[in-house]
Amino acid sequence: MNRSEVRRAQARTEELFDKAGIVLTEEEKAAIEVADFGLGQLNAQGLELITYINTNRYCAKELALFPGQTCPEHLHPPVDGQPGKMETFRCRAGYVLLYVEGEPAASPKAKLPAGSEAHYTVFREIELYPGQQFTIPPGTKHWFQGGPEGAIVSEFSSTSRDEFDIFTDPNIVRVPVIAEED
Amino acid sequence: MNRSEVRRAQARTEELFDKAGIVLTEEEKAAIEVADFGLGQLNAQGLELITYINTNRYCAKELALFPGQTCPEHLHPPVDGQPGKMETFRCRAGYVLLYVEGEPAASPKAKLPAGSEAHYTVFREIELYPGQQFTIPPGTKHWFQGGPEGAIVSEFSSTSRDEFDIFTDPNIVRVPVIAEED
Repeated sequence: MNRSEVRRAQARTEELFDKAGIVLTEEEKAAIEVADFGLGQLNAQGLELITYINTNRYCAKELALFPGQTCPEHLHPPVDGQPGKMETFRCRAGYVLLYVEGEPAASPKAKLPAGSEAHYTVFREIELYPGQQFTIPPGTKHWFQGGPEGAIVSEFSSTSRDEFDIFTDPNIVRVPVIAEED
Repeated sequence: MNRSEVRRAQARTEELFDKAGIVLTEEEKAAIEVADFGLGQLNAQGLELITYINTNRYCAKELALFPGQTCPEHLHPPVDGQPGKMETFRCRAGYVLLYVEGEPAASPKAKLPAGSEAHYTVFREIELYPGQQFTIPPGTKHWFQGGPEGAIVSEFSSTSRDEFDIFTDPNIVRVPVIAEED
């Protein structure tokens, strides 16, 4: 991604938060993280987020998904002798399809990102509408997709250490590389 | 409090959440906790809340304050060899005046609850408008008051064990006693 793409995605994310009645400070707006996971197809596979707080005891983030955007399959491994990150997803606006390890749905409602189908392997389906939430146990593979109007999801969790996340797709680079422009 | 008072306070809390665009499930609405701290003056000293999740690693709640309502001064002590609860208050709607240990404000903006003035002893003042947040270190005395239109505050924290909270006012009973009616 280059800086202009990041700025456009940040502006789109601001609109989603605004529509959901979620207020951010100007500093937070400027710090909206845009993750394309190094795949270069943000609208298909990506995630936008704000980290409100991340301490050695807990973490809280606000996640945004564009319509149909998918956060690729990954898990949070143990780090430094601590169990992997445990996280609760609470849908605030829009609609999210969440997939975790377990009994697969006979006919999953999500549309797999074209060309990356092989990297989605867990299909227990959880549908979250506003006010609904689900807690993902540590070390559990999961991925999620925004509905037709996108989604806003509050994430409450143990300490976040994104750099240790393990993605099913070996092409993924979690920490974004942003090309600065003149 | 009796059950009718609790139901009225729950309905009022629902309105505050609704106005702030925060969606609750029907089960959550029915489970809104109304805490009068045993003081019998809910509108002056009390707190309404929903616990979204409370695990042995983290906790998330949504707090509501009626206009001018004050959550009495307390601290979270160490429990079972763990440091006291650490919590981040993020204002979502309305306005909240938060007071913690530290340099006292020369002229605090909050109005102390009549008759309970002696039980408010810390006056470092933090004003939180929507989108603003503050993290309260473990073991720090704090209290907070809703603005003229009340307040909605998201609380992100380490594990919550309300029953161990230490209140400055010795008359306080944290776990509510609700009188059932025929």
